[in-house]
Amino acid sequence: VPASPGLTVTYLLTGPRDECVAVARDLCIEQTIEFPADLVTRPEILDHVVARADEPVAVAPDLHEVRVEFSAEIIGSELTQLLNVLFGNISLKRGIRVQRIELGDPLLSRFRGPRFGRPGLRRLLQAPGRPLLCSALKPLGLSAAELADLAYRFALGGMDMIKDDHGLADQPFAPFRERVARCAEAVAKANAVTGGRCLYLPNVTAPAGEVIARALLARSLGASGLLVSPGLVGFDAMRLLAEDERLGLPILMHPALLGSFVISPVQGISHRVLFGQLARLAGADGVIFPNFGGRFSFTPADCRDFVDGTVCPMANLAPALPVPAGGMSLARVPEMVEFYGRDVILLIGGDLHRDPRGLVESCRTFRRLVE
Amino acid sequence: VPASPGLTVTYLLTGPRDECVAVARDLCIEQTIEFPADLVTRPEILDHVVARADEPVAVAPDLHEVRVEFSAEIIGSELTQLLNVLFGNISLKRGIRVQRIELGDPLLSRFRGPRFGRPGLRRLLQAPGRPLLCSALKPLGLSAAELADLAYRFALGGMDMIKDDHGLADQPFAPFRERVARCAEAVAKANAVTGGRCLYLPNVTAPAGEVIARALLARSLGASGLLVSPGLVGFDAMRLLAEDERLGLPILMHPALLGSFVISPVQGISHRVLFGQLARLAGADGVIFPNFGGRFSFTPADCRDFVDGTVCPMANLAPALPVPAGGMSLARVPEMVEFYGRDVILLIGGDLHRDPRGLVESCRTFRRLVE
Repeated sequence: VPASPGLTVTYLLTGPRDECVAVARDLCIEQTIEFPADLVTRPEILDHVVARADEPVAVAPDLHEVRVEFSAEIIGSELTQLLNVLFGNISLKRGIRVQRIELGDPLLSRFRGPRFGRPGLRRLLQAPGRPLLCSALKPLGLSAAELADLAYRFALGGMDMIKDDHGLADQPFAPFRERVARCAEAVAKANAVTGGRCLYLPNVTAPAGEVIARALLARSLGASGLLVSPGLVGFDAMRLLAEDERLGLPILMHPALLGSFVISPVQGISHRVLFGQLARLAGADGVIFPNFGGRFSFTPADCRDFVDGTVCPMANLAPALPVPAGGMSLARVPEMVEFYGRDVILLIGGDLHRDPRGLVESCRTFRRLVE
Repeated sequence: VPASPGLTVTYLLTGPRDECVAVARDLCIEQTIEFPADLVTRPEILDHVVARADEPVAVAPDLHEVRVEFSAEIIGSELTQLLNVLFGNISLKRGIRVQRIELGDPLLSRFRGPRFGRPGLRRLLQAPGRPLLCSALKPLGLSAAELADLAYRFALGGMDMIKDDHGLADQPFAPFRERVARCAEAVAKANAVTGGRCLYLPNVTAPAGEVIARALLARSLGASGLLVSPGLVGFDAMRLLAEDERLGLPILMHPALLGSFVISPVQGISHRVLFGQLARLAGADGVIFPNFGGRFSFTPADCRDFVDGTVCPMANLAPALPVPAGGMSLARVPEMVEFYGRDVILLIGGDLHRDPRGLVESCRTFRRLVE
């Protein structure tokens, strides 16, 4: 028996039952000691370090689920090592998918999780009951002044959150410092007009040594939240941003580069775990996810799996808000509210620019649709 | 035409020709402005920011390759944004795979690449002509003293490089500081006996705010190289380690958590690009990769593709050394040398422990096999 209950993972394994028994046995070695069991000289390593698998349970023809228990001791307190134990080496093997995870309370207590989460974001925005609204500053190529002008009109029209396009980094056409200063100022100006509390979330996905510095700079320039792509900077860099007391800002997670983990139904990591549970472990308050029926390839079931992960019980960790996106339109708002309910951030980009009456009116229409 | 030649990517697209033309057109938008082209008000954004795709070329039934050119301007000088442009959003779409990349010289000149690379590692080890030898400190669960004892015997037996198991983080059974101090001392002691130059590479895969500090600590304790898993800490954190002048140590890259990118032949990122070209952009001197015929699922063609990426011309960037691994044995050494040639680091773990004459003799046998 592992020394103390740490991480329990339900893996989906492809193959007949006997084969899955063998795969599960190998996995218990591969993800821990990665060493021939017959050569281990200290028996307590086999007892306390090697993971332990339950019997496989058939869930479909040639598909079995198996629960594997990893001891807290081999994970320590580092998210990087948790990811390694969860799917490090076995990401390189075929036919293995992480379906669900459960963390023991001692392990879970090492993670703060979302600083705001669902209740915190609603308090911050003074929007207790309705879906929240978000748009993005784009297209790439606009100047800082042009982006700030968009931000002003979004905020004036009643958006709750305005995020940078995730492709805005520190390019010459809209350098980070100038962009953040101008956009934060524009949103503050609009808030003064409307009495609203619209947040501006610049993209702080940045070189490894600059993520925190860029976030601190953003805060000092008036940013009221942060956009991060953990696929580009690492999940643990997002956790660091979420835990930094000097920042104290809500975090919106972008899924860039993470698609390869979820694109196969029999390999990789489930939507629930990657965009829900791991996102919360790493401190995301809201998680952008490609909605079904948009430009991307996910199904309603994938989206449901994702939402489950944002809200399933995880001891002290607050639930995060799902942010379905990816080619959404005003026409789809009623359907999205029906599917996701009120606990959602609706993110519409390009379609808000289609209204001939202009962006402000378009945002007002969006707002009326959810009130 | 994009403003200045930046990144040219050859994507493999699944589908009939007409469909691939449409996918390529969408991709040019998705990876850049991510905005409806008909709503873009400034024509120079369509001319200079949106990527440009060539005609698809059929390479197999229902598979087409298409070259896409991205301007240097949208990438700026950040590896995180390069990864985003390469495969950020489109990782979430089906049937798209990054096959090959070419970087323009101005863009490439922003990256230092491997500090040592193939020639530098050979100079450091004073081993000009033969395959290099590596083993790993494991199993997880051994104490720092026990790991140091292994390290001593590996070095005495003639290994060139000894790396931490990639699962060794900062767990209580072998805390980082004690482990590195003891293992570095053990290797130095053995080097004094043999007159050899064996390197010890501790694992500095660590929480986002601690990677550099842990590497500096490792260096101060006598480590002579670093092991990093960019799948866990981000590729850009590896680049930062490689570029840090206070460190100046060779870097061995571990593929943990990266398998989902390469596991499908029609989605994700090719072995060549992920483990070869991107690894070099991020400063890896040697790259661990699951060899064919071991515990993992890769083919000889996958391994060849990987090796091509470690050595293909990339202007100022040195070639890296491939490190085929994953359940290798002494019995397979001749076959591996035939396949990979002399420019390889052979990594054998568990199998070295099987020799009844003991670890030192086992390593000497390994060394004789390549001399």
